[in-house]
Amino acid sequence: MRAVVFDGELRLEVDYPRPIPDSEQALLKMRLAGICNTDMELMRGYMGFSGVLGHEFVAEVVQGAPEWLGKRVVGEINVTSGTCVMCEAGIPSQCFHRTTMGINGHQGAFADYMALKTVNLYAVPDNVSDEAAVFVEPLAAACQILEATHIQPREQVVVIGAGKLGLLCAQVLRLTGADVSVIVRRDRPRQLLEKWGIKAVSRPEIASKSAHVVVDCTGTAEGFAEALDMVRPRGRIVLKSTYAGLPQADLTRVVIDEIQLIGSRCGPFAAALRLLEVGLIDVASMIDAHYPLERVDEAFAYAQRAGMLKVLLTF
Amino acid sequence: MRAVVFDGELRLEVDYPRPIPDSEQALLKMRLAGICNTDMELMRGYMGFSGVLGHEFVAEVVQGAPEWLGKRVVGEINVTSGTCVMCEAGIPSQCFHRTTMGINGHQGAFADYMALKTVNLYAVPDNVSDEAAVFVEPLAAACQILEATHIQPREQVVVIGAGKLGLLCAQVLRLTGADVSVIVRRDRPRQLLEKWGIKAVSRPEIASKSAHVVVDCTGTAEGFAEALDMVRPRGRIVLKSTYAGLPQADLTRVVIDEIQLIGSRCGPFAAALRLLEVGLIDVASMIDAHYPLERVDEAFAYAQRAGMLKVLLTF
Repeated sequence: MRAVVFDGELRLEVDYPRPIPDSEQALLKMRLAGICNTDMELMRGYMGFSGVLGHEFVAEVVQGAPEWLGKRVVGEINVTSGTCVMCEAGIPSQCFHRTTMGINGHQGAFADYMALKTVNLYAVPDNVSDEAAVFVEPLAAACQILEATHIQPREQVVVIGAGKLGLLCAQVLRLTGADVSVIVRRDRPRQLLEKWGIKAVSRPEIASKSAHVVVDCTGTAEGFAEALDMVRPRGRIVLKSTYAGLPQADLTRVVIDEIQLIGSRCGPFAAALRLLEVGLIDVASMIDAHYPLERVDEAFAYAQRAGMLKVLLTF
Repeated sequence: MRAVVFDGELRLEVDYPRPIPDSEQALLKMRLAGICNTDMELMRGYMGFSGVLGHEFVAEVVQGAPEWLGKRVVGEINVTSGTCVMCEAGIPSQCFHRTTMGINGHQGAFADYMALKTVNLYAVPDNVSDEAAVFVEPLAAACQILEATHIQPREQVVVIGAGKLGLLCAQVLRLTGADVSVIVRRDRPRQLLEKWGIKAVSRPEIASKSAHVVVDCTGTAEGFAEALDMVRPRGRIVLKSTYAGLPQADLTRVVIDEIQLIGSRCGPFAAALRLLEVGLIDVASMIDAHYPLERVDEAFAYAQRAGMLKVLLTF
């Protein structure tokens, strides 16, 4: 089968071995996959990754348990042990023995076929297109903000980092009724936010110590410092992106202003599917290009252009 | 009156003007005061402080509203406006226009007399000695941990930084029923903790990613890094001390393990007084010395010795 392999360089292999599902797995035939910033970070050395990339996908079950055969599915990317203290505590996404699809120890989705544990599958409702379903994983990560902290309707929320994840976060946060602003520098996100009825602002428009909640999707020390400046005392900063290196952080400010920093990672697939099913999230406007798998090099080059949103791989 | 003034150097002034209380204030005659690590940080330049030091005290009301006259009191150190958005939000300790006794814009307690807003006063119950009441401010700060996060009885809690504040935090945390360990390097805190029935451990005894909650009372980048190592995924790190400079912080770990960092500062005086009144906290064992105000230089020199606990100033 075809598979996009990274082992220091990116290449398309055409005779990569098709996975053979075990009794707990289903074999999935890919329909559509999405390129995530994490994929590009992995290519820059994050996690020391080597293998088949990809963790945003929609696929069809072609082998496995009868009740799943023929179904269109998305899949939870954390493959868990079910036996560690985190699994027993009801937090399987933090399983100590987990592998993570296309990120750590598990084949990724940029391949014609992938074997995945049946318990990881979610059926895609008929009215959710492939182009929408492929956003379930990052949309679930945006929904995780609402798992991690209670956003109240009267609060002021600021999102920084108006890329793919930041725009999904802003759309989810808007559903809470809170007063959401997104800091933007480019026209593209400004236009999308205006279309969605979300305030697009420049940095000076947000007063120091004014926001109840700041969601940092920048993954930069500068972004974190801005978040600390904008959040009000007793406010929360939700950290949605991993950071390059060890940023300097003004922890004294965190103490004096009694701020909470909340790390947030993968989220609830079922909630993301519900929001797509009832049409509350616009992902179609965030798609910039489709590339066939053979042109994965071009797809990655395009996805890495400044300001680019979602680039999809077709099979 | 006598007053301990710091303006680049520490000195006792003997003819410092006695404050004249306004209609909202009471005049307090000091009975006993405590030296805090913050006092020593202020002398190293923290907050650019200049003025009369001191914020841990017990005093007698000698002038003011009749219902307070003659009462033995402690006093909330944050003097607030009552009108800013933080006050209106019910969080006066974060008042945007606050002054803070002996720290920022308000005369401190290391003086024969101090004027303080009547609303800041708390009457000391008869069965709470001056030597206990002088601990109310730092004990309230320890109680603030329980305001900031819900410590559940089944949780494992680790305190790092076994100084004055860390030992008070450990005593408060022990009341939750949680499994509390304190990392110690010296004999003195080890003996106190053993007396209190709290586990004193060395760093290697705490496994990585094992603690539900880590309370960092070190105020050092190294302490924070240790806290991050010990906390389990989805766990909380409570930051109780300000940090020198801008420590490097592994925010990526915070994201991936979905950790919460919770800054925590001043706390509830009423709760601290209740705990002292019913004898649930042993502060007497933490007193190392009494010095008369005239010997404040010696008192500070003694307080700054490694491993020293509370040094009190008598009037």
